[in-house]
Amino acid sequence: MRVIGIDPGLRRTGWGIIDLDSGRPAHVANGVCEGTGSDLAERLLAIFEGLAGVIARFAPASAAVEKTFVNKDAVGTLKLGQARGIALLVPARAGLPVAEYAPNEVKKVVVGVGHADKAQVAHMVRMQLPGVELAGPDATDALAIALCHGHHVQFRGRLQAALARAEAGR
Amino acid sequence: MRVIGIDPGLRRTGWGIIDLDSGRPAHVANGVCEGTGSDLAERLLAIFEGLAGVIARFAPASAAVEKTFVNKDAVGTLKLGQARGIALLVPARAGLPVAEYAPNEVKKVVVGVGHADKAQVAHMVRMQLPGVELAGPDATDALAIALCHGHHVQFRGRLQAALARAEAGR
Repeated sequence: MRVIGIDPGLRRTGWGIIDLDSGRPAHVANGVCEGTGSDLAERLLAIFEGLAGVIARFAPASAAVEKTFVNKDAVGTLKLGQARGIALLVPARAGLPVAEYAPNEVKKVVVGVGHADKAQVAHMVRMQLPGVELAGPDATDALAIALCHGHHVQFRGRLQAALARAEAGR
Repeated sequence: MRVIGIDPGLRRTGWGIIDLDSGRPAHVANGVCEGTGSDLAERLLAIFEGLAGVIARFAPASAAVEKTFVNKDAVGTLKLGQARGIALLVPARAGLPVAEYAPNEVKKVVVGVGHADKAQVAHMVRMQLPGVELAGPDATDALAIALCHGHHVQFRGRLQAALARAEAGR
């Protein structure tokens, strides 16, 4: 299964795509959609079109979006919320199921601890996707989200297979 | 000129359309797009498709969206931000210029004071759009936003005409 991870942001929305078919995850592509434009609506439109283009090109079957960190900066939270609305909309519009993971959940799966810093996340993303060239910190985070989602999907798959075997052996 | 006003919300996004061609605003239609669905991405998609349908049907030339009230409830701000991202995206995607007005700006234009309550706003919307049937408070707010935008557009038009006359008479 091909998975897209998305790290939403109004300036830069990172995306990363991995394949899960061969048992261990394989890198497909990663990049950044820039929220360029003279006003907010144009910037959101640029992110929408960028992400829609990525999904049309790479045809992932499933999507995962980072849960936004809600903090005391209400204006920042609102901006991020607007970008996040687009990041959730685009895969849903393409018919993809959209999962959500909190940042510390992503770090726990990818690095092993919930409070890892950016350098540790980038290191582990490179370890798990050998040869990957990272298009910047937002794309790195997006790949980490995709890896976290892949882990959950494969775990669910193994769990279901085990349950089916147990059922059949009864 | 036909104008759409949009009052974004994750449960209900209100919309209202008026025509400005005859000197005084005339009501065209108003309603609500419900953010139905089992998860956030589906709810945002429902709002996106609802609003896109309204814009395709009524073909407004210009849009105005309420500026979100940022408060201390960060989770609420984030939810509203996500719906607002969609409310800004849909008209931008249809090629419409998108204006933004703060709630107190809207009330000041429509009611005359910045701190009017919902009943006063509904009363003044009915006064300015005789015979209108309001599809609920969100649709009422959306018509108020459209009226506010209409006021600004017409004021700008008169100002430009006056400047052109002054220029010609020099």
